[in-house]
Amino acid sequence: MQGSDSSGIDQRFQVRRLELSDKNKGFIELLQQLTVCDSVTDKDFEDRFHELSSLGDDHVIAVIEDDQSGMIVATGSVFIEKKFIRNCGKVAHVEDVVVDANTRGMQLGKKIVGFLNDHACSTGCYKVILDCNVDNRTFYEKCGFKQKEVQMVKYFI
Amino acid sequence: MQGSDSSGIDQRFQVRRLELSDKNKGFIELLQQLTVCDSVTDKDFEDRFHELSSLGDDHVIAVIEDDQSGMIVATGSVFIEKKFIRNCGKVAHVEDVVVDANTRGMQLGKKIVGFLNDHACSTGCYKVILDCNVDNRTFYEKCGFKQKEVQMVKYFI
Repeated sequence: MQGSDSSGIDQRFQVRRLELSDKNKGFIELLQQLTVCDSVTDKDFEDRFHELSSLGDDHVIAVIEDDQSGMIVATGSVFIEKKFIRNCGKVAHVEDVVVDANTRGMQLGKKIVGFLNDHACSTGCYKVILDCNVDNRTFYEKCGFKQKEVQMVKYFI
Repeated sequence: MQGSDSSGIDQRFQVRRLELSDKNKGFIELLQQLTVCDSVTDKDFEDRFHELSSLGDDHVIAVIEDDQSGMIVATGSVFIEKKFIRNCGKVAHVEDVVVDANTRGMQLGKKIVGFLNDHACSTGCYKVILDCNVDNRTFYEKCGFKQKEVQMVKYFI
């Protein structure tokens, strides 16, 4: 039974890349569960969407649409930084991972992070990094990460 | 006298963007003081240089050339991440800051980070972030940063 449950969840919650129409499926409202995210006009959303899409595999936003409700219930992004160090290596930066409060406990966060990790690996990055608050450390350890450095921040506004 | 010393140092160590010819001025050898950085062929350097240059203000590598020796003695990079959160805001990521061991104690690191911060601010970022080891926290605090989160990493190789 466990097997069929798990496969049912896999069927219901599939990871794919963000699409323009996701704005009407609660994508912005989901981001509002993460941090300050004012409502975005359709024009601003389209402009930013196309700007990011033009970066191709160098900037990917993953989402999970709930097959039952048609709403976006999880998201996370990854972008690829190109360096001179490590033999002109590449590093993947994971950002803005959030799972809808109503669908937590179904491993959707792990699914999103796994998708982003796979993308980072397949594009030849030598590592993937992210910053999180201490409370989320255990979750990322389950996703294969280890704590390494500290994050420093300077706000302009 | 302090004034003229300081102005002499300012004159000798000016910050500018990376140029193609900096490969022959010790740029790669400087990065080797930071981390693993194999020697890079001229072709690989040029390719990566042009790839990054094509991003314009979204990826800037700053360097300081010692006016006396003609060598690159400090560097740091910043790239701009575009988001949907914060009213389609932008975040600057500072990476790969290093000062040549022979020119430490002359505030060159502060000069480089100040240049990158100014760039982040002038391009409309709402914050600038970086990851560093705990030993460098005090330096970045002097540059106006505060510790916030923890960095998690997963290596593929």
